[in-house]
Amino acid sequence: MRPLIQTLIPSGHSPSDCGEAYAPANIALCKYWGKRDEALKLPRTGSLSVSLGAFGTHMRLLPAKTDSLCINGMEFPADDKAHRRLFGFLDLLRAPDFRLRVESRNTIPMAAGLASSASAFAAAVKAMDALYDWGLDGRTLSILARLGSGSASRSVYEGFVEWHEGVDPTGMDSFAEPVAPVWPDFRVGILTLSEAEKAVGSSEGMKRTVETATLYRAWPEQVARDLPEIRRAVLCHDFPALGRTAENNALAMHATMIAAWPPVLYWRPETVAALHAVHQLRAEGVDVYATMDAGPNVKLLFLAPSEARIQEIFPHMQTVSPGDG
Amino acid sequence: MRPLIQTLIPSGHSPSDCGEAYAPANIALCKYWGKRDEALKLPRTGSLSVSLGAFGTHMRLLPAKTDSLCINGMEFPADDKAHRRLFGFLDLLRAPDFRLRVESRNTIPMAAGLASSASAFAAAVKAMDALYDWGLDGRTLSILARLGSGSASRSVYEGFVEWHEGVDPTGMDSFAEPVAPVWPDFRVGILTLSEAEKAVGSSEGMKRTVETATLYRAWPEQVARDLPEIRRAVLCHDFPALGRTAENNALAMHATMIAAWPPVLYWRPETVAALHAVHQLRAEGVDVYATMDAGPNVKLLFLAPSEARIQEIFPHMQTVSPGDG
Repeated sequence: MRPLIQTLIPSGHSPSDCGEAYAPANIALCKYWGKRDEALKLPRTGSLSVSLGAFGTHMRLLPAKTDSLCINGMEFPADDKAHRRLFGFLDLLRAPDFRLRVESRNTIPMAAGLASSASAFAAAVKAMDALYDWGLDGRTLSILARLGSGSASRSVYEGFVEWHEGVDPTGMDSFAEPVAPVWPDFRVGILTLSEAEKAVGSSEGMKRTVETATLYRAWPEQVARDLPEIRRAVLCHDFPALGRTAENNALAMHATMIAAWPPVLYWRPETVAALHAVHQLRAEGVDVYATMDAGPNVKLLFLAPSEARIQEIFPHMQTVSPGDG
Repeated sequence: MRPLIQTLIPSGHSPSDCGEAYAPANIALCKYWGKRDEALKLPRTGSLSVSLGAFGTHMRLLPAKTDSLCINGMEFPADDKAHRRLFGFLDLLRAPDFRLRVESRNTIPMAAGLASSASAFAAAVKAMDALYDWGLDGRTLSILARLGSGSASRSVYEGFVEWHEGVDPTGMDSFAEPVAPVWPDFRVGILTLSEAEKAVGSSEGMKRTVETATLYRAWPEQVARDLPEIRRAVLCHDFPALGRTAENNALAMHATMIAAWPPVLYWRPETVAALHAVHQLRAEGVDVYATMDAGPNVKLLFLAPSEARIQEIFPHMQTVSPGDG
């Protein structure tokens, strides 16, 4: 992988005293589910997300004598999974004998069930770019972030972002690009339904689905239908079409997991109750749609004028305005 | 449809004073989900079920001056849906001016979430056969029952039963046949989780899935894999393979509904809780599997020796021995 990466990074740059960057978390409206290459994290299909403005990861990199990692003020030892994964990734980008102190701060509400790996790896690449003053463009940042976590490829931008699946086995054409700026009225409501640790990690869930779920064979066709429609709806501010397609896409992704063996059942009783409540709100004429990632929690998509009514039904909902960067 | 039916029924028979028959309910282990012909109730795929022994419908037909219907001691008026559906079906089998008193008794536990339409239409055909002394064979009874309700084609037999999808547009090759007799240790546990009326009827749910769910396109492939495996497992008494494949098939059927638009979400919070409890029992080494029809209730598949442990976890479970005819 390193030779590939070295073609992307200018040589001869020396690190400064500190590299600092921020990257937002993101929520996919058309999901990424299934890899065609595990090592290069190349997806089987394209995807499209919205970045979550002020909810994300701030990262500071400081040259040091030994590697160390601090997240939200807590030190993570070298044998911790998060430590190994982050420094394993930084090894791809730094000289073999170069050590770093990493100080990371997530502004994602605790226990919101939002993945922080996308914003963390995107922030890490941007902080390395700042540390070395490489001046990488968005496409290159996106390719490099993808090597840390697939969905991190989208977190290098604000607003609505599309990740192209690409066809090249090296992954050089599998990067994200901005589709449209933030839609001022667009809102994401986060419902924290279950804080239980997931029994199956999302990489494992994805792999098991691809390998065992017969219904997964129709997933690329689902994305081929949904992705252009979501892109169109984002560009035209056609909210009902966006919501409908995003909910159908998210439920179809979970459907492929439910159809895997052993079943990948991230849903909890509260998940189903929330989905029925969303459907009930729609039956009352409220334009609200659900999306879900690889976990039990539900995120709601709506426009600002519907917020008050939705908050009545879900009093614990935390609302994100993706435009608040 | 009548000309087709007249080729199946011998002519010149007069009705006796009373025709009486019994047919069991059945639970599909490989599901029927999606029609290729709505009127003739021709399925897109084959299916395989187990009949539920003493749980079913007793039906008595008595020539009368006007049509009337009594189910479990309750009279159903002529404008009731059940009345219209049953006599609409009997019209296919009787002379235009011939009227019947129908007395039907379901031995299916109340509110068990078990469909009674399969046993009712199978019992109706068998009772007509008895009333007229036609002496129809199983294949003919199955074709005729199918015209009342698709899954009724399987309820004309006891034991394990396979319904062949057929290819003929007239449906003359789409009938059920016995696969194997009852397996003495085989048990079905019925969990009544929700008695709420279904928001979407199963015919409508099926139609919406076929028309809108992209993932449904892989369903015939799912059945093509599951049906031979379930048949083999039934014949060899390979219970783990039977359970695994039946649960995967049922969850995949629900997955196609979840992926439809608007979503066909029969699951209730209790459904998901029961599925997790089943998975937890399996993690403890208990060989128990779940299946579900178009509704929120869960049915368990297990062998007699596991019953006590499963009953501890699901104290309200009602256990059926399919061999108790």
